Amino acid sequence: TITTTTITTAPSILQPYWASLQADIEAHLKHVMPYKDPLVVFEPMHHLVFSAPRTTVPALCLAAGELLSGDRHQAMAAASALVLLLAANHTHEQIPSKPKPMSRPKSNTMSFRAFSPGIELMTGDGLIPFGFELLSRSCDSVQENSDRVLRVIIEISRAVGSKGLIDAQYKKKLLSESDGGESCHVERIMDIMEKNEGGLHACGASCGAVLGGGSEEEIERLRKFGFYVGMIQGMVNEGFWEEVEVVKDLAFKELQYFKDNNRDVDAISSFIIHV
Amino acid sequence: TITTTTITTAPSILQPYWASLQADIEAHLKHVMPYKDPLVVFEPMHHLVFSAPRTTVPALCLAAGELLSGDRHQAMAAASALVLLLAANHTHEQIPSKPKPMSRPKSNTMSFRAFSPGIELMTGDGLIPFGFELLSRSCDSVQENSDRVLRVIIEISRAVGSKGLIDAQYKKKLLSESDGGESCHVERIMDIMEKNEGGLHACGASCGAVLGGGSEEEIERLRKFGFYVGMIQGMVNEGFWEEVEVVKDLAFKELQYFKDNNRDVDAISSFIIHV
Repeated sequence: TITTTTITTAPSILQPYWASLQADIEAHLKHVMPYKDPLVVFEPMHHLVFSAPRTTVPALCLAAGELLSGDRHQAMAAASALVLLLAANHTHEQIPSKPKPMSRPKSNTMSFRAFSPGIELMTGDGLIPFGFELLSRSCDSVQENSDRVLRVIIEISRAVGSKGLIDAQYKKKLLSESDGGESCHVERIMDIMEKNEGGLHACGASCGAVLGGGSEEEIERLRKFGFYVGMIQGMVNEGFWEEVEVVKDLAFKELQYFKDNNRDVDAISSFIIHV
Repeated sequence: TITTTTITTAPSILQPYWASLQADIEAHLKHVMPYKDPLVVFEPMHHLVFSAPRTTVPALCLAAGELLSGDRHQAMAAASALVLLLAANHTHEQIPSKPKPMSRPKSNTMSFRAFSPGIELMTGDGLIPFGFELLSRSCDSVQENSDRVLRVIIEISRAVGSKGLIDAQYKKKLLSESDGGESCHVERIMDIMEKNEGGLHACGASCGAVLGGGSEEEIERLRKFGFYVGMIQGMVNEGFWEEVEVVKDLAFKELQYFKDNNRDVDAISSFIIHV
């Protein structure tokens, strides 16, 4: 089954660590994105950012930054930018190709269209540059981290761009239009998953590692760990239970490196234990 | 009269200097954005970037960089990013709120929809991060210009974002839905022009100045010059001839500062002489 949105939402059993990181990110976003005039701009912006399905991508970014730096908010700029860019993407993905009435559907879901497609399109287009602006502004003259911030901008651009999330969405669109009878159906789902859940979580973890001051080895190991975290979520969603255990083992192997280097991996391991 | 697109296209009398800068930017874009597999991604990307109406914003960015550094390609990354972001914006602006047939209209214009709205939406969403990626990648370890690149990312994010171009487009939408009879009609058009043509050209010129190694004074003077260049274009489009001469004088005054400092302003002054 293919869900409505491409990005997998966070596991339904919310972990205390994940929930607490997510709360910190949202508090930060409310601070940098005040609810002010012109309301015609900020009201849809707020609504679309905070009503978009939550994913574990931004929290994993903070967790990776905390693992390496000991400071929970070290990677806050990247985590916030990821929330904004994923919200923009979700908003645009929901724009109907044919206009629908702006009202609640007859089902019992709470989901309804609060704004017209034109406003959703423009708001999404405003959120994307704002995410990059937040990142650029996070540069700290004391830390002299401008090269790390630029690296994060490249990482995030690629993960959400034409070779990343957009490619996954295009392939998902093709898949949903096919009859699903081909032998390569599972391969196609996995291919989409690698760029969607896998690629986004790999990006989140590697950005956290970059801003956390990680070495190349630490960044690449956390990138792999993030990829596995995303793949596990995608596989659980698709019911590929057999593969889940294999990937969990791979993820633990990446964390073992940090454990061997006297890092406390308890918190970040919750991203794979409680799936 | 309100034109279809928000961004004013380049003057119909193409100046040799503008045309030559524009050609350099497009050659650079073809180099960094090769026409390759997957064609489903790169074909619409190419089409939408190179078929979007050309504006003088990216060329002014190069011109400002050349004025200060003597190197015509010093601000190429910012100029290229501006082309991509403005193309994405134009693409999204053309998406109909109601589906239209993908065919040539009955008029004699060459304009027709080559791709479905869904593809246009996704392609635009891919172009925006790619613009920021190009900028971040342009960082030069020899020049140690990462702080200048980050500053340019902030400038561009703001100019195209919710308080810049998106705001202008929203206000234009409201204006087109009103009957146009109010006394404040001209003020509203000017307000839109300030964020659209004015703000975008101010951004182009200031980004060129930042990457050209300009001082704060040089950056701010070129920002003002760019703003006037954009306003002149907008006023010419609207037929506000009386104001044009006043603004031209203001623009020349900004250039006088550079002339007094032994800069050759002949080339960049073509942006106001030949309007």
